[in-house]
Amino acid sequence: MEKNTRNNLIDSAFKEIYEKGYQGASMTTILNNAKVHKGSMYHFFANKKELALISIKEKIYGRFDERYNIILQQESNYIEAFIKSIKDVTQRDFIRGCPIANIVQEMSNIDNDFKVLMEEIYYNFRKNIKEILDKAIEKKEMKECDTRKLALYIASTLEGAILSAKATGDVQDYVDVIDILSSYILSFGTKKVNFDIN
Amino acid sequence: MEKNTRNNLIDSAFKEIYEKGYQGASMTTILNNAKVHKGSMYHFFANKKELALISIKEKIYGRFDERYNIILQQESNYIEAFIKSIKDVTQRDFIRGCPIANIVQEMSNIDNDFKVLMEEIYYNFRKNIKEILDKAIEKKEMKECDTRKLALYIASTLEGAILSAKATGDVQDYVDVIDILSSYILSFGTKKVNFDIN
Repeated sequence: MEKNTRNNLIDSAFKEIYEKGYQGASMTTILNNAKVHKGSMYHFFANKKELALISIKEKIYGRFDERYNIILQQESNYIEAFIKSIKDVTQRDFIRGCPIANIVQEMSNIDNDFKVLMEEIYYNFRKNIKEILDKAIEKKEMKECDTRKLALYIASTLEGAILSAKATGDVQDYVDVIDILSSYILSFGTKKVNFDIN
Repeated sequence: MEKNTRNNLIDSAFKEIYEKGYQGASMTTILNNAKVHKGSMYHFFANKKELALISIKEKIYGRFDERYNIILQQESNYIEAFIKSIKDVTQRDFIRGCPIANIVQEMSNIDNDFKVLMEEIYYNFRKNIKEILDKAIEKKEMKECDTRKLALYIASTLEGAILSAKATGDVQDYVDVIDILSSYILSFGTKKVNFDIN
């Protein structure tokens, strides 16, 4: 029961912040959607900011697990699995954009606690991609390269692709960018890969 | 005098919105920095929103002129000039990030007037890049390719690179992404280009 209350607050806060930004997020809406009274909230979190920081951290790391760690648990075909994952448009919300980018854009230059958290999250985002590339190299699926730099490039292009689709309201923009990015990643491959993903 | 008042309001509004977002922007700060009374503002703009939309439009199109149209006025070396421009880190503010991305992230899914304006601006951003690529192909500096798609890819990666540097506070992240992007663009070139930009 206690755990449910906390989880409901985490889910509700993340959803509201994702939709309206941290500054625009309403505590009343968060509490209503979580079906939690203000008094009970203070049992778990000191204030709106603490709730926001913890919910962002937990929800985004949860996504990383679902999206990237699952690939690392495979025995092989790391690059194929990664490209399949970034090509899957059902995994992302192109109207709201990327939650990481949204919060970085809104908060990183105005609040140091958000800046520190988002920096940590962003480095972990890139680390997840780097680990997949390193695994692919270890298994000789990919040529040796500077995986730190390549992971940074992939993370950046991925973020930019989501932004493009959000700006124009056209998911095809994301698809087109990921198409070029995928070919670029595959140019490091050691074998020919046949891609028909639908 | 009239023109000065209007320009001061435009400059002051853009600066405040760039720093704090549209929702966080304070009209009092905008008026104080512009040294304009509230009454005089209403002579030019109906409200905060109209001032914001017009200042974003004018300031960003002004930047496009300085950054891209100047390249189009050259007689040759379009790709070199474009790469030199994106490699120039003094042209951008990595603490605040890209004003286009900031406003898209904050406003595109919550207000339709902002959505429409940012969509128009984003398409023009890509059109500027496409025109440079088309010029380069016309002058045989570049191989024929799908310049619409390549311009979209470049615009997206550029935006992602600025976001990465904002997220980590490390300008080198931007430099590293642009380094890979530049090599990718140059792979479409028809001649060997020697790049030592400092």
